[in-house]
Amino acid sequence: MQLEKNPLGPHFQVLSQTHNSLARRGRIHTPHGVIQTPAFMSVGTAGTVKGMTPADLKDLGAEIILSNAYHLYLRPGHLFIEKRGGLHNFMAWDRPILTDSGGYQVFSLNALSKITEEGVDFQSHIDGSRHFISPEKAIGIEAALGADIIMAFDECLEYPATYPRAEDSLNRTLRWAARSMSAHHRKDQFLYGIIQGGCYPDLRERGIEGLLPLGFDGFALGGLSVGEPQEEMLKVLDQVVPLIPIDKPRYLMGVGTPSDLVEAVSRGVDLFDCVLPTRHARTGILFTSRGELHIKNARYKEDDLPLDPNCQCYTCSHFSRAYLRHLFISKELLAMRLNTLHNLYYYLSLMSGLRKSIEQDSLDQFRQHFYDDRATGI
Amino acid sequence: MQLEKNPLGPHFQVLSQTHNSLARRGRIHTPHGVIQTPAFMSVGTAGTVKGMTPADLKDLGAEIILSNAYHLYLRPGHLFIEKRGGLHNFMAWDRPILTDSGGYQVFSLNALSKITEEGVDFQSHIDGSRHFISPEKAIGIEAALGADIIMAFDECLEYPATYPRAEDSLNRTLRWAARSMSAHHRKDQFLYGIIQGGCYPDLRERGIEGLLPLGFDGFALGGLSVGEPQEEMLKVLDQVVPLIPIDKPRYLMGVGTPSDLVEAVSRGVDLFDCVLPTRHARTGILFTSRGELHIKNARYKEDDLPLDPNCQCYTCSHFSRAYLRHLFISKELLAMRLNTLHNLYYYLSLMSGLRKSIEQDSLDQFRQHFYDDRATGI
Repeated sequence: MQLEKNPLGPHFQVLSQTHNSLARRGRIHTPHGVIQTPAFMSVGTAGTVKGMTPADLKDLGAEIILSNAYHLYLRPGHLFIEKRGGLHNFMAWDRPILTDSGGYQVFSLNALSKITEEGVDFQSHIDGSRHFISPEKAIGIEAALGADIIMAFDECLEYPATYPRAEDSLNRTLRWAARSMSAHHRKDQFLYGIIQGGCYPDLRERGIEGLLPLGFDGFALGGLSVGEPQEEMLKVLDQVVPLIPIDKPRYLMGVGTPSDLVEAVSRGVDLFDCVLPTRHARTGILFTSRGELHIKNARYKEDDLPLDPNCQCYTCSHFSRAYLRHLFISKELLAMRLNTLHNLYYYLSLMSGLRKSIEQDSLDQFRQHFYDDRATGI
Repeated sequence: MQLEKNPLGPHFQVLSQTHNSLARRGRIHTPHGVIQTPAFMSVGTAGTVKGMTPADLKDLGAEIILSNAYHLYLRPGHLFIEKRGGLHNFMAWDRPILTDSGGYQVFSLNALSKITEEGVDFQSHIDGSRHFISPEKAIGIEAALGADIIMAFDECLEYPATYPRAEDSLNRTLRWAARSMSAHHRKDQFLYGIIQGGCYPDLRERGIEGLLPLGFDGFALGGLSVGEPQEEMLKVLDQVVPLIPIDKPRYLMGVGTPSDLVEAVSRGVDLFDCVLPTRHARTGILFTSRGELHIKNARYKEDDLPLDPNCQCYTCSHFSRAYLRHLFISKELLAMRLNTLHNLYYYLSLMSGLRKSIEQDSLDQFRQHFYDDRATGI
């Protein structure tokens, strides 16, 4: 399929689609540059992608990173960062940034959070101090941080949840979405709404329909990858993605495994973020075309092969599994660095492979190769 | 003063000297390349300079690193590394490496080490297992690792030490030096002897005179920077350096602070290694032209200046003290990385400044500026 020069709007362009799926190649335009989609966002929770310099991230080809409003609000503070010229300037990253609103974190990191119609009262996971975040406050924090794309404040539903619980939560999320939009004033930030509704199709449908009139620049699927089987997540995608206007970016929050990415891209998702590549790197779990490899395993002790013989990353071009295992066992800093470089390279290459296969309308073959390689084993 | 093309031998060339000191510019030739001296060796204890890739080290201009035979012997094992093609290949560093012999570590890391004429019986600091290293075994370990420059096995004297204790230890070190030389067979490795003798001038004299007939390729000053005041160390240098043949590299082991380097270079030392820049980086102590800066200090909380406004390193070119403090307080991996980059850059620039000032015979002015800048304070 030819790339189409068909800008559908100022923020997002669809360039091409496959003939037999909802997968599409696109471009997201932001004040700090363009993001080729489908794209994976590396997670930089506290204003740094753990262990990576901005130069490393650029070398890896990262076009956008995600940072967490919740964490930056608590430390060093959003107004503190605003005074330093905003998050881009503070962390010396001049490409696009997306901030989440903290909705997920106030629940997942706080057993003692208390929710009211007004917002959420929670305890800092750092020093135990009490804080309150409302939709208005979340948007204010995100405005101060100055990311290119910001997220509405939502209630992130636990899994599993009963229908009444899911419905109640969805209604609150919709009211908060309207308040988020009303509080949104920075014209240089794009605001995305978050579709909730759990695993209940009718609630998900109301989740998107309730957001549509509010004028969001993009739509995220929230409350997934919270413990449900992949099959259930894909069922939600199959149902909800077609309900999202074709000219808006579709962002699947907090997802996922390599297979999740392949399946979700095939179902028309444009944007992802996940801590897996960076977090797994630090615990010695490395992604390869043939599956995951636990570097501390004794079988790699005298293994002189690179992590992934098919990988072109700095780590695989220079170091053996035996060396990486030595670093990991010795708790050397460089272990985390080289592992993170590799895992992010794996994720970003997977996305670039997916993008290319959509351009060439060969996504089915790409998917087949992806699963065949993994089936071979390491 | 003009650079002289006057090769004094296959391993080391003196290129120029100042008119009023023993300081000299030189070149050390090794199978993996040339080292411009005076030079500082970054410490890569376990086959990695903590947090730095070989590419980082090359970007910093590092021409040689030091690694520790003791640590590599214990983990992953010297024969293990030999099977992986030697240390250069294992750690993907294709420039010169110097290995110490483990003499210092078996004492400093082992309260329970037992010394006999044959060698040292000690306990692994990793798993408590018992090991024995003799001069022959140390040279064998270093041969297996395959560094370009290797060190004789010595007894590292504690500070302070009585005269009889120092004399006894020196005599043993001299006997071990002869045994180290007899055990040395690899023609592609240069073996340096270690001058001991504590703070006793006559013992230091015997320390070098006993080594001279053995045919070492270079001479190290050992047992310094072990707690004695700088003044005492410099007195030893003033006395001992002139006793070392002018055509041999002079290596001051485990030293030191920036001021130690300036003073020792002024006294004719060619080679240094020290954990200070890398270790201090990890505890948040940063070297600057105006002295040391403790990044966790509250005074840097809202400080938008770089660590050192005069520094051209990656860290100083991109990040503020406020950001670096945030990373450090948040225990972020990137803190260690950026701090290490900066501190090594500081040390390597200091050495390159010293080399240039020797070439231009302006070491006195360099020294003056060095102390004037520090006196200004941060």
